Amino acid sequence: MAIDRNKLRWNGWGWASHPDTFPTRSGVWPWLASELGMPSLLATPARPLEDVWLTPSRLTAADRRILGRLLDSEAVRDDKFERASHAGGRSYRDLLRLRGGDLGDAPDAVVYPRSHLDVLTLLAFASERSIAVVPYGGGTSAAGAIAPPRLAHNGVLTVDLSAMHRIENVDAQSLTVSAQAGIFGPALEQTLSARGLTLGHFPQSFEFSTLGGWIAHGGAGQLSDRYGGPEDWLTSVEVATPRGMLRDSDFPASATGPRMTDLMIGSEGAFGIITRATVRLHRAAEATTGRAYFFRNFASGVAAIRDAMQSCLQIAMLRLSDAEETKFQRALDRLGDSPSILQRASAAILNSWRYDQPCLLLAAFEGAANSVQLSKKTFSAIAREHGALRLGSGPVRRWQQSRFSGPYLRDTMLDRGLGIDTLETATSWSNLQTLYDGVKTALEHAIAQTVPRPLAHGIVMCHMGHSWADGAALHFTYVFPRALGEELGQAEAIGRAALDAARANGGTIKHRYGAGADHPPCYAQEKDELALDVMRAIKNTLDPQGILNPGKLMPP
Amino acid sequence: MAIDRNKLRWNGWGWASHPDTFPTRSGVWPWLASELGMPSLLATPARPLEDVWLTPSRLTAADRRILGRLLDSEAVRDDKFERASHAGGRSYRDLLRLRGGDLGDAPDAVVYPRSHLDVLTLLAFASERSIAVVPYGGGTSAAGAIAPPRLAHNGVLTVDLSAMHRIENVDAQSLTVSAQAGIFGPALEQTLSARGLTLGHFPQSFEFSTLGGWIAHGGAGQLSDRYGGPEDWLTSVEVATPRGMLRDSDFPASATGPRMTDLMIGSEGAFGIITRATVRLHRAAEATTGRAYFFRNFASGVAAIRDAMQSCLQIAMLRLSDAEETKFQRALDRLGDSPSILQRASAAILNSWRYDQPCLLLAAFEGAANSVQLSKKTFSAIAREHGALRLGSGPVRRWQQSRFSGPYLRDTMLDRGLGIDTLETATSWSNLQTLYDGVKTALEHAIAQTVPRPLAHGIVMCHMGHSWADGAALHFTYVFPRALGEELGQAEAIGRAALDAARANGGTIKHRYGAGADHPPCYAQEKDELALDVMRAIKNTLDPQGILNPGKLMPP
Repeated sequence: MAIDRNKLRWNGWGWASHPDTFPTRSGVWPWLASELGMPSLLATPARPLEDVWLTPSRLTAADRRILGRLLDSEAVRDDKFERASHAGGRSYRDLLRLRGGDLGDAPDAVVYPRSHLDVLTLLAFASERSIAVVPYGGGTSAAGAIAPPRLAHNGVLTVDLSAMHRIENVDAQSLTVSAQAGIFGPALEQTLSARGLTLGHFPQSFEFSTLGGWIAHGGAGQLSDRYGGPEDWLTSVEVATPRGMLRDSDFPASATGPRMTDLMIGSEGAFGIITRATVRLHRAAEATTGRAYFFRNFASGVAAIRDAMQSCLQIAMLRLSDAEETKFQRALDRLGDSPSILQRASAAILNSWRYDQPCLLLAAFEGAANSVQLSKKTFSAIAREHGALRLGSGPVRRWQQSRFSGPYLRDTMLDRGLGIDTLETATSWSNLQTLYDGVKTALEHAIAQTVPRPLAHGIVMCHMGHSWADGAALHFTYVFPRALGEELGQAEAIGRAALDAARANGGTIKHRYGAGADHPPCYAQEKDELALDVMRAIKNTLDPQGILNPGKLMPP
Repeated sequence: MAIDRNKLRWNGWGWASHPDTFPTRSGVWPWLASELGMPSLLATPARPLEDVWLTPSRLTAADRRILGRLLDSEAVRDDKFERASHAGGRSYRDLLRLRGGDLGDAPDAVVYPRSHLDVLTLLAFASERSIAVVPYGGGTSAAGAIAPPRLAHNGVLTVDLSAMHRIENVDAQSLTVSAQAGIFGPALEQTLSARGLTLGHFPQSFEFSTLGGWIAHGGAGQLSDRYGGPEDWLTSVEVATPRGMLRDSDFPASATGPRMTDLMIGSEGAFGIITRATVRLHRAAEATTGRAYFFRNFASGVAAIRDAMQSCLQIAMLRLSDAEETKFQRALDRLGDSPSILQRASAAILNSWRYDQPCLLLAAFEGAANSVQLSKKTFSAIAREHGALRLGSGPVRRWQQSRFSGPYLRDTMLDRGLGIDTLETATSWSNLQTLYDGVKTALEHAIAQTVPRPLAHGIVMCHMGHSWADGAALHFTYVFPRALGEELGQAEAIGRAALDAARANGGTIKHRYGAGADHPPCYAQEKDELALDVMRAIKNTLDPQGILNPGKLMPP
């Protein structure tokens, strides 16, 4: 079943009906103001849709008539709500624009194809008319991948795939499923769960993102340590392009040359619109269990995770917060309405263990009952070797309950004069501390230079949530007082400093989500010129008129 | 240390000094003749090099002079032995040509670069002069990937990478190694082993093949169930192209768009010459153990392997032979000089269990001691559920001792009027029996139509040596009386029938090794026209003059 877009916030995260994570009278807000060196927070509500002006749709009457013939009349929409709610993704910069009522990026119409044939005809029409096409799954892009610059096109058509949500074939013997690309996470997992199966892909956006979006943005789920990302679970894709369908066969393995499927992972819609995918599944885990730990510092937690990831355990997740993030999380727990079990690891215990700045690690294990027990025991021994304090399973359960709700807090912070943005990077184990130190310092410095008051500063926190035998990803979250009126410039300056630091310290500039429109110049710097030539050649072959999500993936 | 090519057979497998697997007086040969419906075998020795005539090298005096300046004089060779021993790979069709003294495909010179700069300058020279370039690792290609048709080029230069065998960086913390692409299996594993590490890539050609070759041909090792193939262990490659170096960064994960590295897996040298690779390693396994089983039939062995691969066990190998291959192997054991432990599972035991046509399964487990024990126990329970008879570890040990020597037997059979060829395919579990039946029937039929005598026929056997959660690869080996004087036509006819059957029954036409020159038309049939356009666009970008291994990977 497709999601009802009318029930979603057009300019923020998730369900319109979702309550504030922390009501105004919560102790969280004064604490946060003091942590940021601000006398008090501000009131910066988003501009309501009725106060927002939208440029008229640039589609001609003839365009509309043709679109109406190509699709059902209901499948072509250009009312204000549709155009506004498709005007951007959910990156910090997208939110600044949407909340400020800057809808210059709104598409001229939104279309809802029902089949790959619908998509093919749309692309043929758009190519002929030189109308830019933006593929749209759940619209949760964290990198500005959804709204194209208008460039020289005759308009922008957003192709919303949410009506393409059919599950076409479950092969329970081979553990694969084929589905249309517009299916949302919950619909997919519910169908699979009824058969004792799972894809196991649970990004934070799970409730509001689609199979095709996960592939196009090279995403990773919270349990990626066990279930991997599209590079692991994607067997094949079908892609509609202006030159016709591009299909890969879905053999479990083949050596008949490079796979088109690999090209589509992280392609951000620049090569075509993914209409269908076949993916590998797992049987629902026989057993799941979790345990939390405090480590004395980030480095010892990192070392424990490295040892575990190089030991072939049945790990579903090892999520390590640095001291700042642990402190932040504990404060929210202490000051929120429902003090958590994490609180019970009280100051007294921590002091007796001399954990000045504890770092929280949440471990989850899934698989066959006996190997899960063995893995949990082995990991506990590893953690002990690295001086960790064992906390029990409570914090893991609590994290699981709220694992998808983090982004709602962002809206609430944006209402209060705060900025919040993220950076994800990845590197080898041997370079991890260097990268962590370099990015953290750069972020703190860049924030200090852009905050509006001399004594204000930011909170820079980090966690490690995806790791492999050879390295790990660092996910930085930074909160800061907004420079009102210059907010996009501030976001850009801090973001650029962080990416420069990531690159200078041996990290990739994006571990997931693609580079979108938020970071194209950096992207071009990560690949060499010849690789860009190859990408352009592929693009020109599949999209000769250059209508597919212009400006994404590579410089125009 | 590079391998000494002078000690290798120029027209057959491996070391020239390797003894015959079965001496002429062995009981193996009469048994084989009778199995094939032949009164006796023939004597069909290979033509010695001194009786072979080679067309003069087409390089001009100026070409030679320039090459001599670009590289050391020792690094440019065009003597008869060098040219002849680089005239083909080791597919059945290559061997027919080489043994018959048909050296029309011999390169005009062989060059031995020492660095990526050497390769770059060679490619610049060859582009300018329109000389075709064939990358050459160990020369063991099983798909005719090494000898190009001469087309309209001004000659053929084989670039032998065996002098590029330096290990450049071992990162013991991140478990990765960077090495020049020409390093051979044993040299790489010896260096790693000294540090307690392994790549774990052991194809049957391990002793005579190189890191770069494994990548370019999308190979798989015998322990791929644990260690995977290049698609799993390859972090990044550096590739010399006529347009300069193409380099990918070696992050453990990144979402900054498609990886050039993925394009190089199975690229057969058509996009560039791989000069360096960074790959993921494992710590040497703490424990290894093995156990053999007899299954009542192929289907029950397949079912046991499927259950195991979908259970996340610490499996290094599950290798299941069908009834024909088991019978063949037992006959060689019984009739050879050193009857094996496999014999001890005597006819009496098998009869009492009603195993009319037993299928042998060899299971190997590697990893941490406790999880290896757990995996072995769990697999034994699975095998028992599927009615298997447990044989102990002897057959696995014996297989391990001779795991790389199989191809020598092929030369000995070729000396005796026999043909022996292989086909590898892969499909999903739900389609496996269909594919097995379809290919087996097609092979038996095609062989019966091409054998020289009415009562003669072939032996078609199969094993399954690589499997995944979603499917498995089938490796067919077929032995048949040669149609003397029409041997290439016979090989071609049988091969085409087998590939057609694989495709018609839902299998890939190549699970590994690439398609080479032996099968280009079939290859083009597996990918669709638009995918071929993409491949051509990539090729034209990296190799505008079309000098790189012409005719490989895609139709010219």
